[in-house]
Amino acid sequence: MNKTAVVLLSGGLDSTVTLYYARSKGYEPKALTVDYNQLHKIEIKKAQTTTKLLGLDHCIIPIALPWKGSALLDTTIPIPKNRKAIANHEIPATYVPGRNTIFLSFALSWAEVADAQVIFIGANQLDYSGYPDCRGDFFQALQKSFTLGTKKGVEGAAIHIETPLLNMNKKEIILLGKELHVPFEQTWSCYQGAEKPCAACDACLLREKGFEEAGLIDPLM
Amino acid sequence: MNKTAVVLLSGGLDSTVTLYYARSKGYEPKALTVDYNQLHKIEIKKAQTTTKLLGLDHCIIPIALPWKGSALLDTTIPIPKNRKAIANHEIPATYVPGRNTIFLSFALSWAEVADAQVIFIGANQLDYSGYPDCRGDFFQALQKSFTLGTKKGVEGAAIHIETPLLNMNKKEIILLGKELHVPFEQTWSCYQGAEKPCAACDACLLREKGFEEAGLIDPLM
Repeated sequence: MNKTAVVLLSGGLDSTVTLYYARSKGYEPKALTVDYNQLHKIEIKKAQTTTKLLGLDHCIIPIALPWKGSALLDTTIPIPKNRKAIANHEIPATYVPGRNTIFLSFALSWAEVADAQVIFIGANQLDYSGYPDCRGDFFQALQKSFTLGTKKGVEGAAIHIETPLLNMNKKEIILLGKELHVPFEQTWSCYQGAEKPCAACDACLLREKGFEEAGLIDPLM
Repeated sequence: MNKTAVVLLSGGLDSTVTLYYARSKGYEPKALTVDYNQLHKIEIKKAQTTTKLLGLDHCIIPIALPWKGSALLDTTIPIPKNRKAIANHEIPATYVPGRNTIFLSFALSWAEVADAQVIFIGANQLDYSGYPDCRGDFFQALQKSFTLGTKKGVEGAAIHIETPLLNMNKKEIILLGKELHVPFEQTWSCYQGAEKPCAACDACLLREKGFEEAGLIDPLM
């Protein structure tokens, strides 16, 4: 069986753990990063360090979106800070319209050209930030469109979207990362573009809670 | 009701007719063109001329795909010529993996940011070139993922994919274009990058058949 897989790698904690998970399952990952002009571009450098370390094929695709509509793209929209109820079904200002659909559509294209049968994405719907494009039912629907809309799908060899972290909480993701020897210092979560994590945005708070519950020290802090 | 719509405009016959159709239905179109480094870039110039003529907002997004896998991207893959049975359920070498998924994911992102409730795409599944991402069941599945994966969808104001040409043949599309006063000389179908249409590729043959059956002269020929 062909074990090539395209792995979406933002450089964040979840996608890096997912990359290591795919390798642990015997896949030969091709890493795909989309540079969508996010403020926290530092995550892309982390992703590059990781794939260099592992000697992986890595594509970074720059897309120049002429629109914004997200606090991750537009410095005039404040990034929410010190929120108490993060996953409270409100969609925060850091939501980027269409982001995972765009990322996965590029992954689909590469997967079909590279003859990969699997796409990995490190989304999770438990300890997450309230983004609708991180939920299982979204991936299921998109999967169906991938099966129907590709040559491989028509030929009965559909490309599958794998979401191994979907129902894990941050603590479990971090423990899995530890088991897989993920270099946590080479992952980035903070939404701010600064050199040190802000320790106040949703991404930082979720990460902090995860490390605390896992009984581990975050090397970035 | 908000009548803003994002219209995918390649500069081809079908997408240009779709743009005029959307206008005729009272929509205020925002045109979206993806420059995916196709050999027949001339279509993008046609698209620009059309939107300038109509005074429309027009975004052209360049994406630098690091992979090819299609005769429209790779000069070493021959473009099929003088094929007799075009829509014979074989997927031709001009198929671009993931193309409509990528195009529609960008359209989704813009639609959500611009508060548009509709995306128009000029796909059709009758006189078409055998691409799986031009079929109705593909669009239905993708539609479901758009509803589930966006803030607007979660809030009950899902962005809809409209495919007005889906079940029309080329003759009908051309007659609709005539009715809507589409300047056919400002549309481009040929897959080759030359200044004159090749009159032999699938796109040229389908266009020729359509004009013949409609009893009209193609101004490009």
